[in-house]
Amino acid sequence: MRIAELSRRTGVPVPTIKYYLREGLLPAGELTSPNQARYGEAHLHRLRLVRALVEAGGLSIAAVRDVLGALDDPEKSLHKAMGTVERAVVGTGAAPTDEVAHAEARAFVEGQGWAYRPESDAFQSLVHVIATARELGHESFLGQLEGYARAARPLAEQDLDYALSGPTKDAAMEIVVLGTVLGDAAFAAVRRLARREASGIRYARDQAQAAAGPVPADPAADERNC
Amino acid sequence: MRIAELSRRTGVPVPTIKYYLREGLLPAGELTSPNQARYGEAHLHRLRLVRALVEAGGLSIAAVRDVLGALDDPEKSLHKAMGTVERAVVGTGAAPTDEVAHAEARAFVEGQGWAYRPESDAFQSLVHVIATARELGHESFLGQLEGYARAARPLAEQDLDYALSGPTKDAAMEIVVLGTVLGDAAFAAVRRLARREASGIRYARDQAQAAAGPVPADPAADERNC
Repeated sequence: MRIAELSRRTGVPVPTIKYYLREGLLPAGELTSPNQARYGEAHLHRLRLVRALVEAGGLSIAAVRDVLGALDDPEKSLHKAMGTVERAVVGTGAAPTDEVAHAEARAFVEGQGWAYRPESDAFQSLVHVIATARELGHESFLGQLEGYARAARPLAEQDLDYALSGPTKDAAMEIVVLGTVLGDAAFAAVRRLARREASGIRYARDQAQAAAGPVPADPAADERNC
Repeated sequence: MRIAELSRRTGVPVPTIKYYLREGLLPAGELTSPNQARYGEAHLHRLRLVRALVEAGGLSIAAVRDVLGALDDPEKSLHKAMGTVERAVVGTGAAPTDEVAHAEARAFVEGQGWAYRPESDAFQSLVHVIATARELGHESFLGQLEGYARAARPLAEQDLDYALSGPTKDAAMEIVVLGTVLGDAAFAAVRRLARREASGIRYARDQAQAAAGPVPADPAADERNC
Protein backbone atom coordinates (compact mmCIF):
# COMPACT_ATOMS: atom_id res chain seq x y z
CA MET A 1 0.00 0.00 0.00
CA ARG A 2 1.03 3.64 -0.45
CA ILE A 3 1.88 5.91 2.46
CA ALA A 4 -1.52 7.63 2.06
CA GLU A 5 -3.30 4.34 2.76
CA LEU A 6 -0.99 3.63 5.69
CA SER A 7 -2.06 7.01 7.05
CA ARG A 8 -5.76 6.38 6.40
CA ARG A 9 -5.73 2.97 8.08
CA THR A 10 -3.90 4.12 11.21
CA GLY A 11 -5.05 7.71 11.56
CA VAL A 12 -1.40 8.80 11.72
CA PRO A 13 -0.80 11.87 9.48
CA VAL A 14 1.55 11.38 6.52
CA PRO A 15 4.14 13.91 7.80
CA THR A 16 4.27 12.00 11.11
CA ILE A 17 4.80 8.72 9.26
CA LYS A 18 7.64 10.34 7.29
CA TYR A 19 9.13 11.54 10.55
CA TYR A 20 8.99 7.99 11.98
CA LEU A 21 10.66 6.71 8.79
CA ARG A 22 13.46 9.28 9.11
CA GLU A 23 13.90 8.41 12.78
CA GLY A 24 14.13 4.73 11.93
CA LEU A 25 11.07 3.74 13.98
CA LEU A 26 9.48 2.36 10.82
CA PRO A 27 11.55 0.40 8.28
CA ALA A 28 11.71 1.90 4.80
CA GLY A 29 9.14 0.70 2.27
CA GLU A 30 9.99 -1.01 -0.98
CA LEU A 31 10.88 1.70 -3.53
CA THR A 32 8.68 1.50 -6.62
CA SER A 33 9.97 4.76 -8.09
CA PRO A 34 12.51 7.32 -6.85
CA ASN A 35 9.73 9.13 -4.97
CA GLN A 36 7.30 6.35 -4.13
CA ALA A 37 7.47 3.41 -1.81
CA ARG A 38 5.16 0.51 -1.08
CA TYR A 39 4.36 -0.66 2.45
CA GLY A 40 3.05 -3.96 3.71
CA GLU A 41 1.09 -5.37 6.66
CA ALA A 42 4.25 -5.45 8.76
CA HIS A 43 4.58 -1.69 8.36
CA LEU A 44 0.95 -1.24 9.33
CA HIS A 45 1.42 -3.29 12.48
CA ARG A 46 4.68 -1.58 13.42
CA LEU A 47 3.12 1.85 12.91
CA ARG A 48 0.22 0.94 15.22
CA LEU A 49 2.71 -0.27 17.79
CA VAL A 50 4.68 3.00 17.59
CA ARG A 51 1.47 4.97 17.99
CA ALA A 52 0.45 2.89 21.02
CA LEU A 53 3.84 3.51 22.64
CA VAL A 54 3.70 7.24 21.93
CA GLU A 55 0.04 7.81 22.77
CA ALA A 56 -0.92 5.27 25.40
CA GLY A 57 2.56 4.97 26.84
CA GLY A 58 3.61 8.60 26.53
CA LEU A 59 7.05 7.46 25.36
CA SER A 60 9.57 9.77 23.74
CA ILE A 61 10.91 8.93 20.28
CA ALA A 62 14.20 7.83 21.85
CA ALA A 63 12.35 5.55 24.28
CA VAL A 64 10.30 4.06 21.45
CA ARG A 65 13.53 3.34 19.60
CA ASP A 66 14.90 1.50 22.65
CA VAL A 67 11.76 -0.57 23.00
CA LEU A 68 11.67 -1.47 19.30
CA GLY A 69 15.35 -2.37 19.53
CA ALA A 70 14.55 -4.79 22.34
CA LEU A 71 11.71 -6.27 20.27
CA ASP A 72 13.89 -6.70 17.20
CA ASP A 73 16.96 -8.06 18.95
CA PRO A 74 16.79 -11.87 18.56
CA GLU A 75 19.28 -12.31 21.40
CA LYS A 76 17.22 -10.49 24.01
CA SER A 77 15.32 -12.55 26.55
CA LEU A 78 11.84 -11.72 27.83
CA HIS A 79 13.29 -11.04 31.26
CA LYS A 80 15.72 -8.51 29.83
CA ALA A 81 13.18 -6.98 27.44
CA MET A 82 10.94 -6.34 30.42
CA GLY A 83 13.71 -4.26 31.95
CA THR A 84 14.19 -2.24 28.76
CA VAL A 85 10.49 -1.50 28.41
CA GLU A 86 10.08 -0.56 32.03
CA ARG A 87 13.06 1.75 31.84
CA ALA A 88 11.57 3.40 28.75
CA VAL A 89 8.16 3.84 30.32
CA VAL A 90 9.24 4.92 33.78
CA GLY A 91 11.95 7.22 32.41
CA THR A 92 14.95 8.23 34.40
CA GLY A 93 14.08 11.07 36.69
CA ALA A 94 16.68 12.97 38.68
CA ALA A 95 18.30 10.72 41.25
CA PRO A 96 16.52 11.32 44.55
CA THR A 97 18.83 12.49 47.29
CA ASP A 98 16.40 11.87 50.13
CA GLU A 99 18.28 9.36 52.29
CA VAL A 100 15.25 8.70 54.47
CA ALA A 101 13.03 7.96 51.47
CA HIS A 102 15.72 5.65 50.12
CA ALA A 103 15.94 3.77 53.41
CA GLU A 104 12.14 3.53 53.61
CA ALA A 105 11.86 2.18 50.07
CA ARG A 106 14.60 -0.36 50.84
CA ALA A 107 12.88 -1.47 54.03
CA PHE A 108 9.57 -1.84 52.20
CA VAL A 109 10.95 -3.90 49.30
CA GLU A 110 13.09 -6.05 51.57
CA GLY A 111 10.09 -6.52 53.83
CA GLN A 112 8.32 -8.07 50.83
CA GLY A 113 11.23 -10.48 50.42
CA TRP A 114 11.84 -9.15 46.91
CA ALA A 115 15.23 -9.11 45.24
CA TYR A 116 15.88 -5.76 43.58
CA ARG A 117 18.65 -3.60 42.22
CA PRO A 118 18.80 -0.22 44.00
CA GLU A 119 19.74 1.44 40.68
CA SER A 120 16.74 -0.05 38.82
CA ASP A 121 14.17 2.43 37.55
CA ALA A 122 11.31 0.77 39.38
CA PHE A 123 13.13 1.14 42.70
CA GLN A 124 14.27 4.71 41.94
CA SER A 125 10.72 5.58 40.96
CA LEU A 126 9.48 4.26 44.31
CA VAL A 127 12.09 6.32 46.17
CA HIS A 128 11.00 9.37 44.20
CA VAL A 129 7.34 8.89 45.12
CA ILE A 130 8.14 8.40 48.80
CA ALA A 131 10.43 11.45 48.78
CA THR A 132 7.71 13.58 47.14
CA ALA A 133 5.08 12.46 49.65
CA ARG A 134 7.45 13.10 52.56
CA GLU A 135 8.31 16.56 51.27
CA LEU A 136 4.63 17.44 51.25
CA GLY A 137 4.21 16.20 54.80
CA HIS A 138 2.36 13.02 53.81
CA GLU A 139 4.65 10.55 55.57
CA SER A 140 1.57 8.35 56.03
CA PHE A 141 1.62 7.56 52.30
CA LEU A 142 4.28 5.00 53.09
CA GLY A 143 1.64 2.99 54.93
CA GLN A 144 -0.27 2.58 51.65
CA LEU A 145 2.49 0.53 50.06
CA GLU A 146 1.74 -2.65 51.96
CA GLY A 147 -1.70 -2.79 50.36
CA TYR A 148 -0.16 -1.97 46.98
CA ALA A 149 2.16 -4.97 47.31
CA ARG A 150 -0.78 -7.23 48.19
CA ALA A 151 -2.59 -6.09 45.03
CA ALA A 152 0.56 -6.23 42.88
CA ARG A 153 1.66 -9.80 43.67
CA PRO A 154 -1.13 -11.70 41.89
CA LEU A 155 -1.07 -9.09 39.11
CA ALA A 156 2.66 -9.68 38.57
CA GLU A 157 2.08 -13.43 38.19
CA GLN A 158 -0.81 -12.73 35.82
CA ASP A 159 1.41 -10.36 33.77
CA LEU A 160 4.03 -13.09 33.42
CA ASP A 161 1.52 -15.81 32.55
CA TYR A 162 0.11 -13.49 29.92
CA ALA A 163 3.55 -12.70 28.47
CA LEU A 164 4.36 -16.41 28.31
CA SER A 165 1.06 -17.14 26.56
CA GLY A 166 2.45 -15.76 23.30
CA PRO A 167 2.69 -18.62 20.78
CA THR A 168 6.08 -17.42 19.50
CA LYS A 169 8.92 -15.48 21.04
CA ASP A 170 8.06 -12.44 18.89
CA ALA A 171 4.47 -12.51 20.08
CA ALA A 172 5.58 -12.94 23.70
CA MET A 173 7.95 -9.97 23.40
CA GLU A 174 5.22 -7.76 22.01
CA ILE A 175 2.91 -8.80 24.84
CA VAL A 176 5.58 -7.72 27.32
CA VAL A 177 5.73 -4.30 25.66
CA LEU A 178 1.99 -3.88 25.41
CA GLY A 179 1.36 -5.41 28.79
CA THR A 180 3.55 -2.77 30.36
CA VAL A 181 2.36 0.24 28.38
CA LEU A 182 -1.32 -0.66 28.13
CA GLY A 183 -1.30 -2.53 31.43
CA ASP A 184 -0.47 0.59 33.43
CA ALA A 185 -3.10 2.67 31.62
CA ALA A 186 -5.68 -0.10 31.93
CA PHE A 187 -5.03 -0.67 35.61
CA ALA A 188 -5.21 3.08 36.34
CA ALA A 189 -8.58 3.20 34.53
CA VAL A 190 -9.96 0.12 36.31
CA ARG A 191 -8.74 1.40 39.68
CA ARG A 192 -10.56 4.69 39.06
CA LEU A 193 -13.77 2.98 38.01
CA ALA A 194 -13.59 0.85 41.15
CA ARG A 195 -12.89 3.93 43.27
CA ARG A 196 -15.76 5.91 41.77
CA GLU A 197 -18.04 2.98 42.50
CA ALA A 198 -16.85 2.69 46.10
CA SER A 199 -16.94 6.47 46.54
CA GLY A 200 -20.45 6.69 45.06
CA ILE A 201 -21.71 4.02 47.45
CA ARG A 202 -20.24 5.79 50.48
CA TYR A 203 -21.46 9.18 49.26
CA ALA A 204 -25.02 7.89 48.85
CA ARG A 205 -24.87 6.26 52.29
CA ASP A 206 -23.66 9.48 53.91
CA GLN A 207 -26.36 11.50 52.15
CA ALA A 208 -29.01 9.05 53.35
CA GLN A 209 -27.68 9.22 56.90
CA ALA A 210 -27.64 13.03 56.80
CA ALA A 211 -31.26 13.01 55.58
CA ALA A 212 -32.37 10.47 58.19
CA GLY A 213 -31.39 12.26 61.36
CA PRO A 214 -30.49 15.75 62.55
CA VAL A 215 -27.20 14.55 64.06
CA PRO A 216 -24.81 12.92 61.57
CA ALA A 217 -23.56 9.52 62.68
CA ASP A 218 -19.97 10.63 62.14
CA PRO A 219 -19.51 14.38 62.53
CA ALA A 220 -15.98 14.18 61.18
CA ALA A 221 -17.19 12.53 57.97
CA ASP A 222 -19.83 15.21 57.59
CA GLU A 223 -17.24 17.95 58.07
CA ARG A 224 -15.20 16.44 55.25
CA ASN A 225 -18.33 16.39 53.08
CA CYS A 226 -17.25 13.20 51.40
CA MET B 1 11.56 34.15 52.72
CA ARG B 2 12.78 35.57 49.41
CA ILE B 3 12.18 33.84 46.09
CA ALA B 4 15.82 32.68 46.07
CA GLU B 5 15.28 30.75 49.29
CA LEU B 6 12.02 29.33 47.94
CA SER B 7 14.04 28.09 44.98
CA ARG B 8 16.82 26.68 47.15
CA ARG B 9 14.43 24.81 49.43
CA THR B 10 12.42 23.22 46.61
CA GLY B 11 15.00 22.84 43.87
CA VAL B 12 12.66 24.71 41.50
CA PRO B 13 14.62 27.33 39.48
CA VAL B 14 13.68 30.99 40.10
CA PRO B 15 12.49 31.57 36.48
CA THR B 16 10.15 28.57 36.84
CA ILE B 17 8.77 29.96 40.12
CA LYS B 18 8.15 33.30 38.38
CA TYR B 19 6.37 31.44 35.60
CA TYR B 20 4.14 29.67 38.14
CA LEU B 21 3.40 33.05 39.76
CA ARG B 22 2.42 34.57 36.40
CA GLU B 23 0.25 31.54 35.63
CA GLY B 24 -1.48 31.87 38.98
CA LEU B 25 -0.39 28.43 40.23
CA LEU B 26 1.33 30.11 43.15
CA PRO B 27 -0.29 33.05 44.97
CA ALA B 28 1.67 36.30 44.90
CA GLY B 29 3.99 36.98 47.82
CA GLU B 30 3.71 39.94 50.13
CA LEU B 31 5.40 42.92 48.43
CA THR B 32 8.18 44.38 50.57
CA SER B 33 9.39 46.77 47.83
CA PRO B 34 8.27 47.35 44.24
CA ASN B 35 10.61 44.57 43.09
CA GLN B 36 10.73 42.25 46.05
CA ALA B 37 8.24 39.95 47.67
CA ARG B 38 8.26 37.76 50.73
CA TYR B 39 6.93 34.20 50.73
CA GLY B 40 5.77 31.99 53.57
CA GLU B 41 5.47 28.30 54.45
CA ALA B 42 2.17 28.12 52.54
CA HIS B 43 3.98 29.14 49.36
CA LEU B 44 6.65 26.53 50.00
CA HIS B 45 4.05 23.81 50.40
CA ARG B 46 2.05 24.93 47.37
CA LEU B 47 5.19 25.03 45.23
CA ARG B 48 6.09 21.48 46.27
CA LEU B 49 2.57 20.38 45.41
CA VAL B 50 2.80 22.01 41.96
CA ARG B 51 6.11 20.30 41.35
CA ALA B 52 4.70 16.92 42.40
CA LEU B 53 1.78 17.36 40.00
CA VAL B 54 4.05 18.41 37.14
CA GLU B 55 6.86 15.92 37.72
CA ALA B 56 5.31 12.83 39.29
CA GLY B 57 1.92 13.31 37.68
CA GLY B 58 3.10 14.65 34.33
CA LEU B 59 0.29 17.22 34.43
CA SER B 60 0.13 20.21 32.10
CA ILE B 61 -0.01 23.71 33.57
CA ALA B 62 -3.73 23.89 32.69
CA ALA B 63 -4.39 20.57 34.43
CA VAL B 64 -2.47 21.72 37.52
CA ARG B 65 -4.65 24.85 37.58
CA ASP B 66 -7.80 22.70 37.50
CA VAL B 67 -6.56 20.51 40.32
CA LEU B 68 -5.54 23.49 42.47
CA GLY B 69 -8.94 25.05 41.75
CA ALA B 70 -10.62 21.91 43.08
CA LEU B 71 -8.39 22.00 46.16
CA ASP B 72 -9.12 25.67 46.83
CA ASP B 73 -12.86 25.54 46.18
CA PRO B 74 -14.54 25.27 49.62
CA GLU B 75 -17.75 24.06 47.97
CA LYS B 76 -16.23 21.04 46.27
CA SER B 77 -16.78 17.63 47.80
CA LEU B 78 -14.15 14.90 47.97
CA HIS B 79 -16.21 12.80 45.57
CA LYS B 80 -16.24 15.62 43.01
CA ALA B 81 -12.60 16.56 43.57
CA MET B 82 -11.66 12.98 42.79
CA GLY B 83 -13.32 13.38 39.40
CA THR B 84 -11.45 16.62 38.67
CA VAL B 85 -8.09 15.14 39.58
CA GLU B 86 -8.66 11.99 37.59
CA ARG B 87 -9.73 14.01 34.58
CA ALA B 88 -6.55 16.10 34.89
CA VAL B 89 -4.29 13.09 35.23
CA VAL B 90 -5.89 10.85 32.63
CA GLY B 91 -6.33 13.72 30.18
CA THR B 92 -8.90 13.68 27.47
CA GLY B 93 -7.65 11.70 24.53
CA ALA B 94 -9.43 11.60 21.22
CA ALA B 95 -12.81 9.92 21.54
CA PRO B 96 -12.38 6.30 20.47
CA THR B 97 -14.60 5.31 17.59
CA ASP B 98 -14.09 1.57 17.98
CA GLU B 99 -17.65 0.33 18.62
CA VAL B 100 -16.47 -3.16 19.53
CA ALA B 101 -14.00 -1.83 22.10
CA HIS B 102 -16.75 0.35 23.54
CA ALA B 103 -19.12 -2.59 23.85
CA GLU B 104 -16.38 -4.73 25.41
CA ALA B 105 -15.52 -2.05 27.96
CA ARG B 106 -19.21 -1.66 28.81
CA ALA B 107 -19.67 -5.41 29.22
CA PHE B 108 -16.61 -5.59 31.46
CA VAL B 109 -17.62 -2.71 33.77
CA GLU B 110 -21.23 -3.86 33.96
CA GLY B 111 -20.00 -7.37 34.65
CA GLN B 112 -18.28 -5.96 37.74
CA GLY B 113 -21.59 -4.45 38.82
CA TRP B 114 -20.07 -0.98 38.78
CA ALA B 115 -22.04 2.17 38.08
CA TYR B 116 -20.21 4.38 35.57
CA ARG B 117 -20.74 7.26 33.20
CA PRO B 118 -19.80 6.30 29.62
CA GLU B 119 -18.42 9.82 29.08
CA SER B 120 -16.16 9.66 32.16
CA ASP B 121 -12.43 9.80 31.49
CA ALA B 122 -11.76 6.55 33.32
CA PHE B 123 -14.22 4.72 31.09
CA GLN B 124 -13.01 6.43 27.92
CA SER B 125 -9.46 5.59 28.88
CA LEU B 126 -10.44 1.93 29.24
CA VAL B 127 -12.11 1.96 25.80
CA HIS B 128 -8.96 3.52 24.36
CA VAL B 129 -6.73 0.81 25.82
CA ILE B 130 -8.99 -1.99 24.57
CA ALA B 131 -9.18 -0.38 21.12
CA THR B 132 -5.38 -0.08 20.94
CA ALA B 133 -4.88 -3.70 21.97
CA ARG B 134 -7.47 -4.87 19.45
CA GLU B 135 -5.90 -2.86 16.67
CA LEU B 136 -2.60 -4.59 17.33
CA GLY B 137 -4.24 -7.99 17.23
CA HIS B 138 -4.05 -8.53 21.00
CA GLU B 139 -7.74 -9.22 21.58
CA SER B 140 -6.67 -11.47 24.44
CA PHE B 141 -5.70 -8.39 26.46
CA LEU B 142 -9.37 -8.07 27.36
CA GLY B 143 -9.06 -11.27 29.37
CA GLN B 144 -6.54 -9.53 31.65
CA LEU B 145 -9.10 -7.04 32.94
CA GLU B 146 -10.87 -9.48 35.22
CA GLY B 147 -7.67 -9.90 37.23
CA TYR B 148 -7.17 -6.13 37.19
CA ALA B 149 -10.62 -5.64 38.74
CA ARG B 150 -9.83 -8.21 41.45
CA ALA B 151 -6.65 -6.30 42.33
CA ALA B 152 -8.34 -2.89 42.05
CA ARG B 153 -11.31 -3.49 44.38
CA PRO B 154 -9.43 -3.67 47.70
CA LEU B 155 -7.10 -0.91 46.48
CA ALA B 156 -10.08 1.36 45.77
CA GLU B 157 -11.40 0.87 49.30
CA GLN B 158 -7.92 1.50 50.67
CA ASP B 159 -7.65 4.70 48.58
CA LEU B 160 -10.93 5.95 50.03
CA ASP B 161 -10.04 5.04 53.60
CA TYR B 162 -6.78 6.87 53.14
CA ALA B 163 -8.46 9.97 51.69
CA LEU B 164 -10.94 10.01 54.60
CA SER B 165 -8.11 9.69 57.12
CA GLY B 166 -7.24 13.37 56.61
CA PRO B 167 -7.90 15.22 59.88
CA THR B 168 -9.44 18.20 58.05
CA LYS B 169 -11.23 18.63 54.75
CA ASP B 170 -8.20 20.44 53.30
CA ALA B 171 -5.92 17.59 54.28
CA ALA B 172 -8.36 15.03 52.89
CA MET B 173 -8.56 16.90 49.57
CA GLU B 174 -4.80 17.01 49.26
CA ILE B 175 -4.63 13.29 49.98
CA VAL B 176 -7.07 12.69 47.12
CA VAL B 177 -4.81 14.66 44.78
CA LEU B 178 -1.61 13.03 45.94
CA GLY B 179 -3.18 9.61 46.23
CA THR B 180 -4.13 9.77 42.58
CA VAL B 181 -0.92 11.28 41.20
CA LEU B 182 1.55 9.49 43.46
CA GLY B 183 -0.67 6.44 43.82
CA ASP B 184 -0.48 5.59 40.13
CA ALA B 185 3.30 6.08 40.01
CA ALA B 186 3.76 4.11 43.23
CA PHE B 187 1.57 1.24 42.11
CA ALA B 188 3.34 1.04 38.74
CA ALA B 189 6.69 0.89 40.57
CA VAL B 190 5.52 -1.74 43.06
CA ARG B 191 3.96 -3.82 40.27
CA ARG B 192 7.27 -3.77 38.39
CA LEU B 193 9.27 -4.74 41.45
CA ALA B 194 6.85 -7.62 42.03
CA ARG B 195 7.08 -8.63 38.37
CA ARG B 196 10.87 -8.54 38.31
CA GLU B 197 10.88 -10.72 41.41
CA ALA B 198 8.44 -13.22 39.87
CA SER B 199 10.25 -13.13 36.54
CA GLY B 200 13.63 -13.61 38.22
CA ILE B 201 12.35 -16.66 40.07
CA ARG B 202 10.94 -18.24 36.91
CA TYR B 203 14.07 -17.36 34.92
CA ALA B 204 16.32 -19.00 37.50
CA ARG B 205 14.07 -22.07 37.59
CA ASP B 206 14.11 -22.40 33.79
CA GLN B 207 17.89 -21.99 33.71
CA ALA B 208 18.24 -24.70 36.36
CA GLN B 209 15.93 -27.01 34.41
CA ALA B 210 17.86 -26.37 31.19
CA ALA B 211 21.12 -27.18 32.99
CA ALA B 212 19.71 -30.31 34.62
CA GLY B 213 18.64 -32.26 31.57
CA PRO B 214 19.35 -32.34 27.84
CA VAL B 215 15.63 -32.11 26.98
CA PRO B 216 13.85 -29.02 28.34
CA ALA B 217 10.71 -29.82 30.28
CA ASP B 218 8.71 -27.37 28.17
CA PRO B 219 10.14 -26.89 24.67
CA ALA B 220 7.82 -23.94 24.04
CA ALA B 221 9.16 -22.12 27.09
CA ASP B 222 12.69 -22.79 25.95
CA GLU B 223 11.90 -21.43 22.49
CA ARG B 224 10.64 -18.24 24.10
CA ASN B 225 13.86 -18.04 26.13
CA CYS B 226 12.02 -16.54 29.04
